[in-house]
Amino acid sequence: MMYVSRGLSRASRRFRGKIFGEPLSHRQATACRNLLPCLDSSLGDDPSLKVLGCRHISSWSWGLPAALYSIRHHIHHHSASIVEEQLDPFSLVADELSILANRLRAMVVAEVPKLASAAEYFFRMGVEGKRFRPTVLLLMSTALNVSIHKPPPDTIMGDTMTAELRVRQQSIAEITEMIHVASLLHDDVLDDADTRRGISSLNFVMGNKLAVLAGDFLLSRACVALASLKNTEVVSLLATVIEQLVTGETMQMTTSVDQRCSMEYYMQKTYYKTASLIANSCKAIALLAGHTAEVATLAYDYGRNLGLAFQLIDDVLDFTGTSASLGKGSLSDISHGIVTAPILFAMDEFPELRAVVERGFEDPRNVNLALEYLGKSRGIQRARDLAKDHANRAAAAIDSLPDSDDEEVRRSRRALIALTHIVITRAK
Amino acid sequence: MMYVSRGLSRASRRFRGKIFGEPLSHRQATACRNLLPCLDSSLGDDPSLKVLGCRHISSWSWGLPAALYSIRHHIHHHSASIVEEQLDPFSLVADELSILANRLRAMVVAEVPKLASAAEYFFRMGVEGKRFRPTVLLLMSTALNVSIHKPPPDTIMGDTMTAELRVRQQSIAEITEMIHVASLLHDDVLDDADTRRGISSLNFVMGNKLAVLAGDFLLSRACVALASLKNTEVVSLLATVIEQLVTGETMQMTTSVDQRCSMEYYMQKTYYKTASLIANSCKAIALLAGHTAEVATLAYDYGRNLGLAFQLIDDVLDFTGTSASLGKGSLSDISHGIVTAPILFAMDEFPELRAVVERGFEDPRNVNLALEYLGKSRGIQRARDLAKDHANRAAAAIDSLPDSDDEEVRRSRRALIALTHIVITRAK
Repeated sequence: MMYVSRGLSRASRRFRGKIFGEPLSHRQATACRNLLPCLDSSLGDDPSLKVLGCRHISSWSWGLPAALYSIRHHIHHHSASIVEEQLDPFSLVADELSILANRLRAMVVAEVPKLASAAEYFFRMGVEGKRFRPTVLLLMSTALNVSIHKPPPDTIMGDTMTAELRVRQQSIAEITEMIHVASLLHDDVLDDADTRRGISSLNFVMGNKLAVLAGDFLLSRACVALASLKNTEVVSLLATVIEQLVTGETMQMTTSVDQRCSMEYYMQKTYYKTASLIANSCKAIALLAGHTAEVATLAYDYGRNLGLAFQLIDDVLDFTGTSASLGKGSLSDISHGIVTAPILFAMDEFPELRAVVERGFEDPRNVNLALEYLGKSRGIQRARDLAKDHANRAAAAIDSLPDSDDEEVRRSRRALIALTHIVITRAK
Repeated sequence: MMYVSRGLSRASRRFRGKIFGEPLSHRQATACRNLLPCLDSSLGDDPSLKVLGCRHISSWSWGLPAALYSIRHHIHHHSASIVEEQLDPFSLVADELSILANRLRAMVVAEVPKLASAAEYFFRMGVEGKRFRPTVLLLMSTALNVSIHKPPPDTIMGDTMTAELRVRQQSIAEITEMIHVASLLHDDVLDDADTRRGISSLNFVMGNKLAVLAGDFLLSRACVALASLKNTEVVSLLATVIEQLVTGETMQMTTSVDQRCSMEYYMQKTYYKTASLIANSCKAIALLAGHTAEVATLAYDYGRNLGLAFQLIDDVLDFTGTSASLGKGSLSDISHGIVTAPILFAMDEFPELRAVVERGFEDPRNVNLALEYLGKSRGIQRARDLAKDHANRAAAAIDSLPDSDDEEVRRSRRALIALTHIVITRAK
């Protein structure tokens, strides 16, 4: 058993109990050692994690891989020797991500230029900075590239099968990104948000009307692309995801106090809003390759747990992060009356916090009161621990995949495991 | 050749050239004679059509079949004898429409009651009053119920095949209604419309937020239902329809003056916004039954031309109808700057009308000026003629279907042809 020791980030110093040891399996630790780079210290003076010989990785972000490409990656082993290697989850699939970005742009070229530019607006801002879903899905495609004895259903057999399969799996990555961007567009309309990730939201720039239409347009393009895969199980999976995105958004919007104070309800909503898309897309990748239900379930488990871990950390960072790093105002959840895991865990320790939640957070004094309770509770830490638990489960799912001797397959699996750590250790 | 003679409606008296003769094929005239009822004159004193012995049918409406069910239908033949018969397009499928309404309600029962009630809000108002799409699709299902020699693709063979096929075709009717209602919900958000069909729009009652979500919810349920049909060609067809609905809405929103003054652009937009859904749903009905491409194209042609005729008359009625009968303010298109067929035809006669269109219709004086030109032009009549032309093409598509001796099939075909007349002769 090895340990990752996490230091105090400045933003989170106001809360107690930030230092914790995180158990890793041997394989996870190896993956971590092989993949996690040590960033140049000039990138930031806010180290929040030490992994073995690796000093600073706090600037690693799931959400902002673009920054990574400009970094020379140095792998520190136990010895002091430095092995230079282009080996990180994002650079492993960088070329394919470029192809994907181009295909996405081509796909949104519609008959009506204004609508295409509206949809592309978000891709321009989004695809550059937020390629983590496609990255996961492309890595998963390679990670599952093991010999399958029975022919995949609904696919054309032949010499070009492998290449065709890859194109179909790339389609899933594109469709997933389209669904994701569509949900962002509609969420922006709903929330009347002026900014998202620090940029003006489309509805602020172009009006609600175009934002709703652009979202509808992307959803319909996603459906058309999905249908062209000619695999009805995959169509069902991703159609259900769209439904769950809507359900999750509505659950967040219309909850009673009992529901808002329920951890179970929170986790269900989090699954619908965040984890369902990546979970079911991972499963779709497996299904297209003709894998067994067991392998498809492992792919799903990976995506589900990665998504849950990601959102739990997102919810923690809404308290501990800064507005600049989150791309939106800090404390934005609670100030919108959205109760997340840290508060729910704090409520478990201090039941009187429920009365504060019941009064709502229109009054800033209630926000401050909730923060006081949160500060003296283990809420932040327990939310991080839960995220870590889900990250470990995601890694365990990869560990449970059928063995492969193919180095490319093994490297992609290590990259997927490394992503589970990037997710829980990111600081923005 | 027989003729339908149309009288002057009070509302349209301000425009010239309202009396015209409409050629009907023999089969169309027979269908009309057999199916079009003469309504009790107490229903309205605004007769706008005379069909052979049939005096008043102005209250027949595609949009409001509910009113029909309370009416005893008397079929006038050339003789004075009155044959009582429940034979009209809507009552032919009344029982199935009830099943469909119940299934639609069941389908929108989601995990979040508020969202279900939001979606059901429109069904409550909509399904009761606007069942014409399901009516067309159920009639088409029966009209195509002819023996097929090759087995239908993607369907399960066996004794229960016919019953199963019907359930799948009913699904298409339900999915079509869901897509239609979803587009209404999003259109209401977009237009910031306070009323639609005389009732408060959902976004006025419940807020934009819920209206967008309810629309998304219906679209995703439609996609799930579509995927469960396990026919990838049908999924593609209807996914494309959703895309075209969005494209049509955007074309209407973002047109240049050149585009706004183009008849071709108007027809393309009208196809996307109105005709594509019913055209492709009709085609889906044929595909599910395993028909040849030729038969599927005839089904598509029927839906396409019926939809175009419907919208052309809708555009005419925006000028000639009253606010009460349209369910929204009269002249609402032009006052929103939307240029439709009557104005485009008027512009063909009076090119100086283009300058008025270029100035826009924010100024009511421009609206009045446009109406003056329209009044002295043949714009209304030419729009009606074009609608009639499309109605005839729709009827011709039914006439071209493979012959059948089955009386039920033949009756459904007569009903579909009768609908083409109902569409072009409706006064609201």
